[in-house]
Amino acid sequence: MATQTLLSDADLSPEARAVFDDIRKTRGSDFINNFWRALAHDPALLKATWERLKQVMGPGEIDPLTKEMIYIAVSVANACSYCTHSHTAAARAKGMTDAQYSELVAIIGMAHQTNGLVTALQVPTDAEFQV
Amino acid sequence: MATQTLLSDADLSPEARAVFDDIRKTRGSDFINNFWRALAHDPALLKATWERLKQVMGPGEIDPLTKEMIYIAVSVANACSYCTHSHTAAARAKGMTDAQYSELVAIIGMAHQTNGLVTALQVPTDAEFQV
Amino acid sequence: MATQTLLSDADLSPEARAVFDDIRKTRGSDFINNFWRALAHDPALLKATWERLKQVMGPGEIDPLTKEMIYIAVSVANACSYCTHSHTAAARAKGMTDAQYSELVAIIGMAHQTNGLVTALQVPTDAEFQV
Amino acid sequence: MATQTLLSDADLSPEARAVFDDIRKTRGSDFINNFWRALAHDPALLKATWERLKQVMGPGEIDPLTKEMIYIAVSVANACSYCTHSHTAAARAKGMTDAQYSELVAIIGMAHQTNGLVTALQVPTDAEFQV
Amino acid sequence: MATQTLLSDADLSPEARAVFDDIRKTRGSDFINNFWRALAHDPALLKATWERLKQVMGPGEIDPLTKEMIYIAVSVANACSYCTHSHTAAARAKGMTDAQYSELVAIIGMAHQTNGLVTALQVPTDAEFQV
Amino acid sequence: MATQTLLSDADLSPEARAVFDDIRKTRGSDFINNFWRALAHDPALLKATWERLKQVMGPGEIDPLTKEMIYIAVSVANACSYCTHSHTAAARAKGMTDAQYSELVAIIGMAHQTNGLVTALQVPTDAEFQV
Repeated sequence: MATQTLLSDADLSPEARAVFDDIRKTRGSDFINNFWRALAHDPALLKATWERLKQVMGPGEIDPLTKEMIYIAVSVANACSYCTHSHTAAARAKGMTDAQYSELVAIIGMAHQTNGLVTALQVPTDAEFQV
Repeated sequence: MATQTLLSDADLSPEARAVFDDIRKTRGSDFINNFWRALAHDPALLKATWERLKQVMGPGEIDPLTKEMIYIAVSVANACSYCTHSHTAAARAKGMTDAQYSELVAIIGMAHQTNGLVTALQVPTDAEFQV
Repeated sequence: MATQTLLSDADLSPEARAVFDDIRKTRGSDFINNFWRALAHDPALLKATWERLKQVMGPGEIDPLTKEMIYIAVSVANACSYCTHSHTAAARAKGMTDAQYSELVAIIGMAHQTNGLVTALQVPTDAEFQV
Repeated sequence: MATQTLLSDADLSPEARAVFDDIRKTRGSDFINNFWRALAHDPALLKATWERLKQVMGPGEIDPLTKEMIYIAVSVANACSYCTHSHTAAARAKGMTDAQYSELVAIIGMAHQTNGLVTALQVPTDAEFQV
Repeated sequence: MATQTLLSDADLSPEARAVFDDIRKTRGSDFINNFWRALAHDPALLKATWERLKQVMGPGEIDPLTKEMIYIAVSVANACSYCTHSHTAAARAKGMTDAQYSELVAIIGMAHQTNGLVTALQVPTDAEFQV
Repeated sequence: MATQTLLSDADLSPEARAVFDDIRKTRGSDFINNFWRALAHDPALLKATWERLKQVMGPGEIDPLTKEMIYIAVSVANACSYCTHSHTAAARAKGMTDAQYSELVAIIGMAHQTNGLVTALQVPTDAEFQV
């Protein structure tokens, strides 16, 4: 289900088409996933989101696979099913091994657990952790 | 504030003391942060949490700094202030540079944004993302 | 799926039927959505929820469409898929245009992003924001 | 507390200073709140966040006060204390009356309640709500 | 901090005073905690919230202490610090032992962990769990 | 959908098989739900999760049905659909009556509501609630 229809390539405004063109070129693939097809109703939002995502997830100080694993971690904690699926697929496409995935899942589970324990106990932050 | 008092070293049961000893030995530091001092009321929970954390965050397929960054990502999304402080401090202690931290923060912000967009639009998962 | 069956009109207790009657009368529609059919197992909860909802979402200082947009915003942040669907449909029924919806989605995305940034950075609240 | 120091005006890079100048000019106020002072360590993130925020929260189809109320709603559901404080202050500065604020709070509470009920009952989405 | 001032007894409207009287009578204590003092700005919300809370948390099929433990569990998962403090205090006042509290905390931590694991793995619901 | 395949009994490693054997023996049932089949890819995580769950949810100071209700409460607040389904089924298997379930749902809804109200109002914690 969705609260917004998904636009096919034939339905795109010229502004949205230009973004799709850049997604395809950047990724070296013709495939456009549903997220962008839903956003395409609002070309300004589509363009702003894609351009910022391209910058944030592009080359930098943190390697591309690590970036995807961080993205998965946030998406799981926010209970975003689509995002968890899409970024897990992206991480695998960027070389995440089964062993790395197992560790990622274990870390996510562990972090959730200690987040819950800390919040239950309302542990005060140590002075040593402050900047 | 807290919903549980923090135990000083003098208040520890022998079982809790043994865990504190292992934390100190493993970390090579005398400092025990408040999380463990709150958990120490329940030596079984203290021991289970520490032993699992040591295993999950120990040597493996994902490097130690990346593990801390994943931990931060989950903690932020779960709005756990203590956890965000403690794991950011841990990441810095493991060598996270200012530039890496800036990228981490940007990725976390980006992921939150697209999580929100996807959930608002209720985007259906692409068949391509399924295993 | 569900953890509770959905009651058809024929299954209702007299107390639940009276609430359904009021929902139909208030909305000027025969359609009763699944939320109420699941709640109908507990007529007291059904009645309390409907009466409070009717009051909170009824005429007041904030116009009906704005109320629905606020409801959507909360529902998205709480990752409630059903609620996001139902209140987006309600907002459209109350006249939300495509352009307004696009802006709403953009605001929700932006708020999620800055929520994530603030929590990652643990920004202290400015004295100027206190009452 | 914070995981990042807050930059004073004297500490700013030229790129960050330019953003602060635009914030001051746009808002017609010399006051720069802590969020921007924490972001200022990363001028690219500061600039991207401010420019997008200015666009999303600027003139459009939804009036400025409604935009702030939607922002508050998301921030509360994401348990972002700073964001709740800052956007409540912003809404008041944009004319939110006490009566409107009371209604906003009531709607947020109501939405949280029905979000919880729906998720507990795992209510399936009605076909009528699909686009 | 707060986004709403706390009303002292001298500041109450007659409607709010009547609710405070009922809280004091029901609880057999003169103490009124800050939550009600913040809500008192909106007597209708104050009254609706108190009356519903009194009903839901009053005598029924689930014993009073268990009700408080369930309330704590929700409050922790929603990262509500105030609520975690107040309902932990309430549970202790209703007889929660240290051993029960330890178990409660352990269950909350465990549930957070498996919630995280399940969401990371996007485990499909077994047909056996459907009603 | 899932981000990880579900292992059939024929696909199990010896270590995973041993855990499945213990689950079946402990529960007195041949049925293994999907959660464990997804975790079985990582026998160490499977074993650690099962053994800790068995301990936490096993005999103790809090009765088994109450433990399941607390687990449901966390799972709902974390928006974990699978977990809500599985623990609601478990609670029913442990004797939860329809009347108890109705009360549980009402408490969960109420707690969500007051969590939202408290966070919206940013109510400061009363000194009386501190340990």
